[in-house]
Parts: sequence; C-alpha cells; structure tokens
Amino acid sequence: MFNTIYRRGLLSATDFSPLRSFLKRHGWRFGVNRFVAGERLEDATEAIRKLESRSLLSILDLLGEFVTTAESVEAMTQEILLTLEVLSRSGIAPYLSIKPTQIGLAVDADLAWENAQRILDRGRAVGAHICLDMESYPYLAPTLDLYRRLHKVHGNRVSTVLQSYIKGSLADLDDLLDLDPKPVLRIVKGAYKEDPEIVYRDKNRGARSFRGLERGATINVATHDERLLSEVAAFVRGAGIPHDRYEFQLLYGVKPKLQEAFVRDGHPVRIYVPYGKDWYGYFSRRLAERPANLMFVIRGLFG
Amino acid sequence: MFNTIYRRGLLSATDFSPLRSFLKRHGWRFGVNRFVAGERLEDATEAIRKLESRSLLSILDLLGEFVTTAESVEAMTQEILLTLEVLSRSGIAPYLSIKPTQIGLAVDADLAWENAQRILDRGRAVGAHICLDMESYPYLAPTLDLYRRLHKVHGNRVSTVLQSYIKGSLADLDDLLDLDPKPVLRIVKGAYKEDPEIVYRDKNRGARSFRGLERGATINVATHDERLLSEVAAFVRGAGIPHDRYEFQLLYGVKPKLQEAFVRDGHPVRIYVPYGKDWYGYFSRRLAERPANLMFVIRGLFG
Repeated sequence: MFNTIYRRGLLSATDFSPLRSFLKRHGWRFGVNRFVAGERLEDATEAIRKLESRSLLSILDLLGEFVTTAESVEAMTQEILLTLEVLSRSGIAPYLSIKPTQIGLAVDADLAWENAQRILDRGRAVGAHICLDMESYPYLAPTLDLYRRLHKVHGNRVSTVLQSYIKGSLADLDDLLDLDPKPVLRIVKGAYKEDPEIVYRDKNRGARSFRGLERGATINVATHDERLLSEVAAFVRGAGIPHDRYEFQLLYGVKPKLQEAFVRDGHPVRIYVPYGKDWYGYFSRRLAERPANLMFVIRGLFG
Repeated sequence: MFNTIYRRGLLSATDFSPLRSFLKRHGWRFGVNRFVAGERLEDATEAIRKLESRSLLSILDLLGEFVTTAESVEAMTQEILLTLEVLSRSGIAPYLSIKPTQIGLAVDADLAWENAQRILDRGRAVGAHICLDMESYPYLAPTLDLYRRLHKVHGNRVSTVLQSYIKGSLADLDDLLDLDPKPVLRIVKGAYKEDPEIVYRDKNRGARSFRGLERGATINVATHDERLLSEVAAFVRGAGIPHDRYEFQLLYGVKPKLQEAFVRDGHPVRIYVPYGKDWYGYFSRRLAERPANLMFVIRGLFG
C-alpha cells in the first residue's frame, strides 16, 4: 500500500515540469551517475569493462523511449549501429537492449521492422545479441508482433521482455513458449505508470519464470528482490537448469553487493547499463521504485 | 547481532529462578496456550482435530526434556505408549516426536534402546511414525547412534533431526544419506544455548535441505523463515520432488497465516503440537526465538 502510493506519487512529482527542468539540468551533480553510466558511449564501455573485472556481464541500453519522429528514429538507429561497431572493435561481444520506439514502432510498424533488420544484420557479423525491450502498454502487442517476426529470421539472437504485472502476461508467455526454437525472455515486473485495470498488484514473476524454465525457454530474471532471486536459484538447482538457460539481471548501481553475492554462488549475472542524454524517464522510474534510491539522491543534494 | 544478544539474554533471563517460578505458576493466564496445546493429552487431540480441519498435519510432542531419572523415564515411556493407544482409538494416525532423554538416553543407552523398541513395536501395530528429536549437543552423537540402530530395524517408521547450526551437521548429514532406505530427516536450525565454538552463525538450512533432497532422502524442513520455505518450494518444483518426499513443519501457534498459505499452494504442512506439564523450557525457547513472541506474552500480561 505504502509502496503503491509512494510509487505513483513519485512518478507524478517527476512529471511536474519545474522539477523536471531542475533535475535535467543539475542531475549529474547529485547522483544520476549512480544509476546511469554516463551520457556518452565511452562512458558506457568503461562501465562494461569495470563490470567485467567483477565477473559481471552487461546489457547496454541507449536511453531514450517513446521516440515519435522519423528523424529521431533514424538518429537512434544510427547510434545503435555505431554502438555495435564500437563495442565489437573494443573486443566486447555486444549485448544491447533496444526500445521498440527507438527504431520506429511509434511511427510505423514497417519502419521498426526495417530498422530492426538493419541492426540484426549488422549484429550477426559481430556476434551481437539484441533484446527488444518493452515500453508501456499501448506498445505491448505491436512489440510482440515485431519480436515474433524477428525470431523467425534471427532465432535466439533476439530476445524480448515480459512484464509480469500486465494481466495478459501469462497468456502472452504461453504463446511465446510455443515458438521454435524456444525463446529467450527477460522477465520483469514492469515499471510504467499504467491503468490499474490492466495490471496486477501481485507481480507473479516467480511463477512466470518457473513456467518458462519448465517449458524449455531461456529465462532472464530481472529483479532486485533477493527472495525472488533465491527462489529462482533454488528452482534452477532443483531442476538442474544449465548456466546458459538463465541469467539474473540487475540494474546498474542497484544493490551491488547482491550482484556480487550471486556471482560468488556461481550464477550468471548481467547488469543493465543505461547511457545517453535521455536519462530522465529512466532515472525517475528508479526513484519511484525504491525509497532507498530517492534517499541516495537526497543525500547527494545536501552532502 | 541484535538477534544473538536478544536470544542469549532471553535464555539467561528465563533461567533466573524467581522469573521461572512466576512463569511456571501463572503462565497459562497470559498466553502459554498460544504455543502449547495444553497440559493434558485430551487438549492435544483436540488441537490435532482443529488442525486437521484446516488441512494441517500434526506431530505430537509430549513436553519434557533432559529427563535424568529412571523413574521419570519409565513414566514418560508409559505416557508415550498411552498416547499411541489414545490417538489410534481416536482414528488419528499417530505421528510423535520423542526426546531421547524421555526414553532414557541420559540414564543409559541400552535403556533408551529398549524403550524405543517398546514404542516402535507398539507403533507398528497402529501405523505410527516416530521422530527421534534432538536435544542439546552432548546428546547428539548418542542420539544418532540410537537412530541408526532403530532405522536398521524399523526403516522409515522412525526419523530423526538434524540441527543445521551445529558445525558437524554437514558431515552428519552425509553419513545419514548413505543409509538404506534413504532416511527421513527433519532439518531445523537448532534452538539450544550452545557453546559458540560448536555452532555456526549462518544456519545453512537451505543448503542442507537441498543436499538431502538431491540425495534421495525425505526432508522435513522445520522453519518459520518465509524466504527459506519459498526457496524449498521452488527447489521442490524444479526437481519435481513428490509430496511424500518433503514436508514443511511449523510450530503450533507460530505464523498461522504462513501455515495456511503453504497449504493453499498444495504443500504438505505439519504442525508441531507440544502438550504436557513440562512446558517451561519449550516456552522460553519460543520467546528467545522471536521478539514478536515475547511481545505477544507481554500484551497478555497487561491486557
């Protein structure tokens, strides 16, 4: 209850335009860099190297969502293609998260398909994995359509995301589990401000993850809930699921000790590394998610 | 840290003789009956029936530990034999927990063996299961010896208890896992006031339980730690362990909502039902275990 009020309140507050301008201008001074690797690609590659030295895998995310103009879409797509080159030249196997509207889904489904093809074709040459991320509810069905088309051509070089708080997520999961080859799915609770009618209060991530693993999918559980992580670890041990069939995915800067504890126990742990100029939406969702994250920023303001 | 101080402090306080006399005299007035079914066997059978109506299994425990005279041992053994009769005549399949010193282990190992045989022979006729419980460290090795002898004759009509906080518990577990048939083990953290040298701070119950299940034993996980219960549930689901290979065991009166939640999810849940006049040691360990339990008693005192 407190969590819901806090979350909705914080998301409304960060929508408030004077606060938005202030944070956008001064954010770096008091702790955005705890959650965002930097504004430039070089910042991101440096972050990936540091994570590597701690035995952590990375998933790179060029920030920017709800992109609605063809010009921005082309710029984003170019930036993503450049990222593939730069990472691969740095000797890093690229593992990227892409928002569907970055490649045009809010403009035109065919545009998104063509841009995804450009990215995946270039990606094939450099051994990249592309995770087609999920934005808010209106993009859910078109994103799954796009994913299915891509999966047919590129198999498991592309994955997508299931937001378990969406009421239709169980049906979506079951549909996806019929794919051949079995899909790679990132399972998250979902963090957008949605109509309460379409989301569960109960997040069901454990149940969704177990079902996916039981039916042969590769499941990447994205959470900071220590209990859920332990449950999945126990399930995986019980079922004898090999290391290439699951990952624990956590966000850059959130609970670093937890990240390391699961690495120490021998689990594959991948860190979501966001970078880029458009960090505001991402940042405010991190604050909404956990009062501890807001406290971190407040301490930055006064310390 | 707080927990350790609280626990040791409370165990010392309840050893303090004026407090002990006061509580022994007035305990029933302010909440002993939350944790103890009653002083008489009829109280216990009534509690078992009530649990049955909530789909909960029972393990009946005649209170009394560290029994050191041959007279008390004979009285206890008679009471246990009577309990088998009464339960069976009431149509209840007896599932009893017995402390080794109740049947004579503090007097003489042969006496304990003979009394255990009397109980298990009578138990066979009424389809009883006997769990040979574990007391404090000095009784550990003799109890395991007794259990092994009994297991050879009575197989899995007898089970025993592994206290995971004991440093030797992993080696003990591995030895027990070589038994044929694979043993039935209740895994607990352990709640006696022991020399810090021989106990772990980390309780290791999860690791012990998984190992036991992997090696084919029947594991009864005795805990109120919701996270541990969820981990075991996840392991069991992953490994496809059938319902007759594990149980969740919780104590009478502790976290009733948790008991019911796991029953609702389809897990076998058994409640440890203590009864009898000698409830003081058991009661003080419950207070030491969780500040919430002490608060319950304090509210009883003033309300």
